[in-house]
Amino acid sequence: MPQTPATPAQHAIDILTRDAELRVWSLIVTLFGDLARARGASLPGALLSQITGRIGIRPEAMRVALHRLRKDGWIDSRRDGRTSTYSLTETGRDATLRASRRIYAPTPETPESWHLLVAQPMAQGERQALAGKLEDAGYVTLSPGVFLGCDAAPSAPDMIAVSGTLAPVPDWVRQTLMPARLLQDYADLDRALTLVADLLGPTPGLNRLDAVTLRALIVHRWRRVLLRHADLPERFFPDGWRGTACRDRVQHLLAVLPVSDPTATARD
Amino acid sequence: MPQTPATPAQHAIDILTRDAELRVWSLIVTLFGDLARARGASLPGALLSQITGRIGIRPEAMRVALHRLRKDGWIDSRRDGRTSTYSLTETGRDATLRASRRIYAPTPETPESWHLLVAQPMAQGERQALAGKLEDAGYVTLSPGVFLGCDAAPSAPDMIAVSGTLAPVPDWVRQTLMPARLLQDYADLDRALTLVADLLGPTPGLNRLDAVTLRALIVHRWRRVLLRHADLPERFFPDGWRGTACRDRVQHLLAVLPVSDPTATARD
Repeated sequence: MPQTPATPAQHAIDILTRDAELRVWSLIVTLFGDLARARGASLPGALLSQITGRIGIRPEAMRVALHRLRKDGWIDSRRDGRTSTYSLTETGRDATLRASRRIYAPTPETPESWHLLVAQPMAQGERQALAGKLEDAGYVTLSPGVFLGCDAAPSAPDMIAVSGTLAPVPDWVRQTLMPARLLQDYADLDRALTLVADLLGPTPGLNRLDAVTLRALIVHRWRRVLLRHADLPERFFPDGWRGTACRDRVQHLLAVLPVSDPTATARD
Repeated sequence: MPQTPATPAQHAIDILTRDAELRVWSLIVTLFGDLARARGASLPGALLSQITGRIGIRPEAMRVALHRLRKDGWIDSRRDGRTSTYSLTETGRDATLRASRRIYAPTPETPESWHLLVAQPMAQGERQALAGKLEDAGYVTLSPGVFLGCDAAPSAPDMIAVSGTLAPVPDWVRQTLMPARLLQDYADLDRALTLVADLLGPTPGLNRLDAVTLRALIVHRWRRVLLRHADLPERFFPDGWRGTACRDRVQHLLAVLPVSDPTATARD
């Protein structure tokens, strides 16, 4: 087959997949979050095959990933004659919606009121269990036994708690919350998104499959850095952090790559 | 000499000195704080001799204590013919006034706004130096590297700081701030002050020397427990803490034992 010149969409897909560790099951989680998170929404197997095929994922790898997600209770499948349709389970949908609020927010939340909690001295195991409970409730661990959050804490009668305003965040906290590796991953993503935005321009005019595929890759790369750290305003992160720039670029790209009815892609 | 029956004042002095470790120099510090803390005020050596003599302190012990306080820069002495007069130095007076605000306050302060500070992980020596600096500024150490206070903190750019309202104080903090021994000392003082108040009644009608001596002993016992812990409202201390009861009794006793012109005692 003669090689055809790469389209801007193909270029953009290459940029977003290059050096990115793409786990197929994780990418499918992103796809459901982007295209089928509404109650009752579903995705035809054929569409999933087209998208993953566009990225160069082998059909066998996709089947294994779908099997794993079904086994984990994340998705359900339904067979209609010769076609399969997939949808999120209640569990999968709940988790997807929780993450979506953060992933798709045009601006991060900037809470005004903070809770600083200090636990009594305790054994390490006990302290880690407490940290787990508080982190599930959106708190961050600043140092052993010291937690910061903006929502009401889970019942914590054994802790010292002061609620109010927060002074400027010191450097050591910023570095704790955003390790150098993650800071670098943000910089890499910012560069990739900038290249993609330049390639696509303000009105990309792509076919639906390319648009859906690029959306998925953009959201996927974004959530893979975003969900690795606590949901905190910019002032908690080191100077040079590209998180706000990345969020703006993601918002811009999703706006120029809309998908009104993703399942239409399968019929293109 | 035939033994005369003990007066109520003598009884009260016995109660307040029994089992109390009275350091003479420290009692003299109390006397200056109670009788001569105003700028320009002084105490005649003769009055000091009378008061300490009334408590059973040997003249030699008093001379040693006065010598020590002069050497430490706490008091100055002046000789007028055959009599010596003593007064606080500027240093002694500053420290006396600082402590007096707390000792003589009819009710403790109940701040509404608190600062909770958390230092970054650091070596123990460094942390202790920081704790010393913050404790000088009225902060209490709740656990290593964790400080609570109500006044603006000394410049602390390296600390996480939340300012606002304080949740109910957990038991482990109350016990940290008020060890069992101190709790017991409060209970003992409460008992002693109750006995003294019962002995003296609402209008003691004592001579000036007895009144001045009892005041000194009451204030002395009170400040010896009070200044051993942080200046915090009642809710920071364990249930059963007799601090508020003691403060009320001290206020009552000082009101029924007034001294308008203490130096008049020496001329009685």
